[in-house]
Parts: sequence; structure tokens; C-alpha cells
Amino acid sequence: MDGVILTPLKKIHHPKGDIYHAMKKSDEGYNGFGEVYFSTVHKNDIKGWKKHLKMTLNIIVPIGEIKFVVYNLDTKEFFSAIISNNNYQRLTINPGLWVAFQGMQKENILLNIASTEHDPNEAKNLALDQIRYAW
Amino acid sequence: MDGVILTPLKKIHHPKGDIYHAMKKSDEGYNGFGEVYFSTVHKNDIKGWKKHLKMTLNIIVPIGEIKFVVYNLDTKEFFSAIISNNNYQRLTINPGLWVAFQGMQKENILLNIASTEHDPNEAKNLALDQIRYAW
Repeated sequence: MDGVILTPLKKIHHPKGDIYHAMKKSDEGYNGFGEVYFSTVHKNDIKGWKKHLKMTLNIIVPIGEIKFVVYNLDTKEFFSAIISNNNYQRLTINPGLWVAFQGMQKENILLNIASTEHDPNEAKNLALDQIRYAW
Repeated sequence: MDGVILTPLKKIHHPKGDIYHAMKKSDEGYNGFGEVYFSTVHKNDIKGWKKHLKMTLNIIVPIGEIKFVVYNLDTKEFFSAIISNNNYQRLTINPGLWVAFQGMQKENILLNIASTEHDPNEAKNLALDQIRYAW
């Protein structure tokens, strides 16, 4: 989908504990640093829909497994991806797209490397049933 | 210790899964964005010692519990802190200080918001027994 990038990430083995890449300044999809935060989502719960007006999201799932659905209201196009520590990829989502996500395991954590600091005026929300998707 | 900051971080309750702050661009200790990565450390294992020449570290522990020890070779001063999801704080470490850390739980993950991209020429290493500390 236009405005969405999935980037496979490296895990580097270390005998005392592995290292997982997340994002470098030189990586495709990096659009400046505003804030980094974690969001958790319980198994089967769905957070969304939310559309950012300015923020580019760069999402990694170090723990658990999360299903992301992105919706372009103009083209009526859906995109979905399940990412996890096993399917270790970074999901870049440009502003202007509707996003929702669902926890798949007992414990699910995402890291968002956001291009802007949190600002409630910068995002719009819709109730889950306002965009129909067969979860 | 000079060059080290511990900053308590907010956890925001959400019925579908809590949100944990990590770092905003406007936060004390932020020194530019180079790279974000995760490092894991097995229970009782100690990674270190390492000294960065340029990189400022901003470390958060979303999973498990990790003991950090920082050593200033010039002043012979040690600093230590145990941070975790329960004692949820960000540890900022300026370049020029020796750092080692030990896993305390079954699973331990740190996030480092590093001010520069990884560069092996930018860091020096010492074997664990080259700086004596009573772990």
C-alpha cells in the first residue's frame, strides 16, 4: 500500500543475550525523531481506529504478536500485517492513513518511533465499527 | 554521578493495554537520534565493560530487571541502578563512562535510544575483571 513500508530487521546473536535492531537514522522510513513509546495490547483486544495527521509511525514488536490493519479512506484499500519477534519487521506508516491493531498472544508490546511528540490534536479517532473489517 | 541521569517515566493506564513513555525530543538527556535497538541479557549474565566515545545512551527496561553499573575511571567513582518495568525509569549515560549490566530476571530487555548509529570504532571494551566491582 502507498505510504506503508515493511522492513525486515536483523537480530544479532550474542551468547549473553541477543541484540535486535529497531531503527537507524539512515534507514528508509525514518522521518525525524519526536518521541519513542511502548504500547501494549491484550490478547484479542483491538485498539483503533486512529489516523495521524502529521506523525509517521515506525513500529516494532519485540514481545508477542500484533496484527496491524491500515485503511486508506480515499482508495478504500486495506493493508494488513502480523509482526512479532519471530516475524521481526518494522512497519512504517505515513500520516493520513487509518490504523488499528489487535493483540494475538498473552503479552504483546509494540515500540513506536514516532516522528512527532504526542499531541491529541494531531490525531483523529473512529470507533472500531465505523470502518468495517473482518478481524 | 556526573554524566548520569535517572528519570522516572510515566505509565498510562489503558483498558486494552497500558502505554509506557520512553523518550520525547524535549526530554532532559535527549542528545539527538542516531539509532534505537534492543539488547537482551540472560539472568546473571553481565555484558561489559564498554565505553562509548561519542554516543549518549538513553536506556529503558520494558521487560525484566537489569542492574547497570557505571564507572568513571578518572574519579574512580561507581554508580549503580536497578531498573525494570516496576521501577520504570530512563537511564541517561553520557559518553566517556564505562558501563556494564547484568540480567536479574528470566527475561530482560533494554531499549537504547542512542544518539549515534552503531560504530565499533566509537566504543572501547574491557574484560569484566579489568574493572573490579562486587556484583
